[in-house]
Amino acid sequence: MSQESHDRFSGVLAPVITPFTEDLSPDAALLGKHCRWLVSQGAGLAIFGTNSEANSLSVKEKRLLLDALCADGVDPGMMMPGTGACSLSDAVELTAHAASLGCRGVLMLPPFYYKGVSDDGLFAFFSEVINRVADARLQVYLYHIPPIAQVPINLELIQRLAAEFPNNIAGIKDSSGDWNNTLQLNQLGIEDFRVFCGSESLLLRNMQNGGAGCISATANVNPSPIVELFERWESADAEKLQLGLDEIRGIFQSYPMIAALKSATARYSGEDSWERVRPPLISLGQSEREKLAAELQEAGFQMPDI
Amino acid sequence: MSQESHDRFSGVLAPVITPFTEDLSPDAALLGKHCRWLVSQGAGLAIFGTNSEANSLSVKEKRLLLDALCADGVDPGMMMPGTGACSLSDAVELTAHAASLGCRGVLMLPPFYYKGVSDDGLFAFFSEVINRVADARLQVYLYHIPPIAQVPINLELIQRLAAEFPNNIAGIKDSSGDWNNTLQLNQLGIEDFRVFCGSESLLLRNMQNGGAGCISATANVNPSPIVELFERWESADAEKLQLGLDEIRGIFQSYPMIAALKSATARYSGEDSWERVRPPLISLGQSEREKLAAELQEAGFQMPDI
Repeated sequence: MSQESHDRFSGVLAPVITPFTEDLSPDAALLGKHCRWLVSQGAGLAIFGTNSEANSLSVKEKRLLLDALCADGVDPGMMMPGTGACSLSDAVELTAHAASLGCRGVLMLPPFYYKGVSDDGLFAFFSEVINRVADARLQVYLYHIPPIAQVPINLELIQRLAAEFPNNIAGIKDSSGDWNNTLQLNQLGIEDFRVFCGSESLLLRNMQNGGAGCISATANVNPSPIVELFERWESADAEKLQLGLDEIRGIFQSYPMIAALKSATARYSGEDSWERVRPPLISLGQSEREKLAAELQEAGFQMPDI
Repeated sequence: MSQESHDRFSGVLAPVITPFTEDLSPDAALLGKHCRWLVSQGAGLAIFGTNSEANSLSVKEKRLLLDALCADGVDPGMMMPGTGACSLSDAVELTAHAASLGCRGVLMLPPFYYKGVSDDGLFAFFSEVINRVADARLQVYLYHIPPIAQVPINLELIQRLAAEFPNNIAGIKDSSGDWNNTLQLNQLGIEDFRVFCGSESLLLRNMQNGGAGCISATANVNPSPIVELFERWESADAEKLQLGLDEIRGIFQSYPMIAALKSATARYSGEDSWERVRPPLISLGQSEREKLAAELQEAGFQMPDI
């Protein structure tokens, strides 16, 4: 992740996977270790994202993890924790806590229980959160992920929010998978609005169209090559770098993503506990683990120095 | 709601709407008043349901409301609070709290953030909750509401859970709106398994096929006539009673349901604060409020003694 002269993020961030102890409690120490490795590889920390199983954690668990990471020396200036929630009170509590700790940004899901809600209702929700947190440092990256949240954040809503809160609305993560939407986000004309694609498979195109980088599941395991493309997207071999990223992503995408990321991390780090997920997710079975490992080895995949 | 000789629910329950103060905090005193009115009209209390805006509340807010209702003299034997959540830790905390207060049942959503999860994952989730709560009194009513949760609870999963936890799996609320599914639930052959339809529009058919009653939004405002059909479903005029219920429901259904229930409650109780909803929902506008009131008056609708 590049540290620029201003405050907003650009670069590559990982929605950091969350390790669990035997009783399925979050393992703060192991999470801190993974965060430090990601930072050493040049990635920023979108902890509490979809791939972090963040919605399988309570607000209290997330607060404690955030406190533990900061106490452990992980730089909040590298953090963009997910703080959106169905409940206004939960979103306010976690967002305020993240801002108070100096997190450089937060990634905010829309409230995702009620479906078919109006833009007026979503505008009211995000406005209430920003007004109640009332922290001038707050930098909100909206999180558009219609395949999972089923509640979209559309272009008109973004423009309305950015007009009302120009100092707080910092950008968006677009996990729609719809390149046309990502392109339109880059053309909104909002000042210093940072557009991250939700997969490195769109990273080169996003950069070529004014984007800020990507926040991608696979950055948990393959950060350095993704960062390399971010840094060298204008170079002659950028297309080749993109193809290399696509090959590795293709392997992970052929398994349940979160379980596969954890299985690879378990294998390369030697920490078996990484295999655990919280229900309703399930871990890879033994034969899937071995098949994944073989495919990764065949592709020459590495997780250096983990 | 009829109190029978055994512990499981039958009858009509309202997913009790939640009133908010000016700063959008839950108003425990007004909620208690509404609960007592509902009980006086023969309805049970499915507090923290979809129509309660329960997923717009934090676990802490729900705990405090439950404590306040019990302290206020509302009988936990009439309560079936919604305690499902995306997060295992949240679901365990609220379910354990409800069971410890003597709530006669809980209504449990599946974890609803991740989509396309496996039955094995859902089985693991519900099993973890039941095992961690570890309270022999716990009576779980599963909550199948695919239009909103987008994560179904299918027949095979129910049979598997009932086989594993025969003393804890008490029934289901079927808000699929699919009569064929409700019928199949009634034919599962699980002992003393209580099937509630999610709308009184299916109440007569549900009762004719072995169902236990309904848990319906409109029971917040029209409880007594719905209870009358439950009690007299075998009488000669049951079809006529059903038609009367359908007419009133039809009026409410032509508005955003939760806002409309609240608007009617505000008007008939004289408590304007009932109009408030939490974002992402929005209240009815003034012209909608008046149109709804006129339509209800035209239909001869009443909320007696509220």
